[in-house]
Amino acid sequence: MVEPYKLFYWPSIQGRGEFVRLALEEAGADYVDVARREGGVDLLMAALDVEEYPAFAPPFLKAGELVIGQVANILLYLGEQHGLAPRTDPGRLWVHQLQLTIADLVTEAHDTHHPIASALYYEDQKPEALRRSADFVESRIPKFMAYFARLLSNPEPRDYLTGDKVTYADLSLFQVIEGLRYAFPNAMKKIEQEHPVLASLRDRVAARPNIAAYLASERRIPFNQEGIFRRYPELDQ
Amino acid sequence: MVEPYKLFYWPSIQGRGEFVRLALEEAGADYVDVARREGGVDLLMAALDVEEYPAFAPPFLKAGELVIGQVANILLYLGEQHGLAPRTDPGRLWVHQLQLTIADLVTEAHDTHHPIASALYYEDQKPEALRRSADFVESRIPKFMAYFARLLSNPEPRDYLTGDKVTYADLSLFQVIEGLRYAFPNAMKKIEQEHPVLASLRDRVAARPNIAAYLASERRIPFNQEGIFRRYPELDQ
Repeated sequence: MVEPYKLFYWPSIQGRGEFVRLALEEAGADYVDVARREGGVDLLMAALDVEEYPAFAPPFLKAGELVIGQVANILLYLGEQHGLAPRTDPGRLWVHQLQLTIADLVTEAHDTHHPIASALYYEDQKPEALRRSADFVESRIPKFMAYFARLLSNPEPRDYLTGDKVTYADLSLFQVIEGLRYAFPNAMKKIEQEHPVLASLRDRVAARPNIAAYLASERRIPFNQEGIFRRYPELDQ
Repeated sequence: MVEPYKLFYWPSIQGRGEFVRLALEEAGADYVDVARREGGVDLLMAALDVEEYPAFAPPFLKAGELVIGQVANILLYLGEQHGLAPRTDPGRLWVHQLQLTIADLVTEAHDTHHPIASALYYEDQKPEALRRSADFVESRIPKFMAYFARLLSNPEPRDYLTGDKVTYADLSLFQVIEGLRYAFPNAMKKIEQEHPVLASLRDRVAARPNIAAYLASERRIPFNQEGIFRRYPELDQ
């Protein structure tokens, strides 16, 4: 019998862990979301302190004896194990490249409400957050979304970023679109009008049976004001 | 005859391209730093616009027919090709995880002088830069450096992050230590006193024959005020 994966991540937010959850769900993999069980946060904290492969921060995944940290790295592994990415170059590297670009966007999205320090409250860095968000909304979201829209439509429309087969990068792009819609509904409305392929990709991923079941379940934590994507209306002007 | 690699990156800075340059140099690989040749920046801009695998931003590497973007992804590939990482799990994933953690630190280092927008000048975001840098110096550098120092010394001292063999993550950590010394000499002096293994790693990498030759050559662009690591004394208090 194969041991279930163990995902170690904060229990009350989607956060970076959500990119891993989506891949595990799409794969139909057997996994335990460790910190969401009773006493699980203590297990998470203890596991951060392993001797051999300590993660700098959650999320990390235990796969049998393997301990894998960093979202894109976990997805690289899960992609190989579950057919969520091509097995050979160049497809394997291309999907990973897209994931790393999405990771950059995720960091920027986080920094809109925490441009000074993660350790400070939003309220203690609000003037800076207003400035950073203005640039994010005016320049950065449009640039990233135009890039992904181009991949989805050039040279011809395609179902997923790399063709007709879903990869972990598509699941992550779905999550980013959902997150940006939550955090920046005004900005996203405008941008999505320009790039209708983004909503198509989002809908296509959301309709995949395993993803649809997940999104309808209690395993999907709702967006909230503690995660990466937060709704502060003043930042979405 | 094997075609030389082509590295596409800005010609006047170390920047993110430097992590790739160091790996190519350590490997003794034949490569062209495209944009540093006459007319090269035009080639760089044109190459950004390729149909099939367009990069979101430089650097990217052409390896025969392959086009690979995102530093960590390029290093994943070069690590496999040139023995700069273990070929099998868990070593392969562990080195990549370390690289991605270094990439996070690099982004934070960049944002110390550009906490609001990359498109603005430093002078236009200086109050924010002062605040962000204070947190970076007090909390973030120490946290990252303690993490890497722990890996270099626990459970027992080792030559490189993963043991006695150099990997691309060691080359990147070398570069980060150099960059932080340049940008935050006061902060680094204090931190390095606490963690002497960091200087040992730095010196060990710098003394590797191919790296030493590279550092002494004109191929190594000096640190300057356009790159990721910049010396603004006011940010290093």
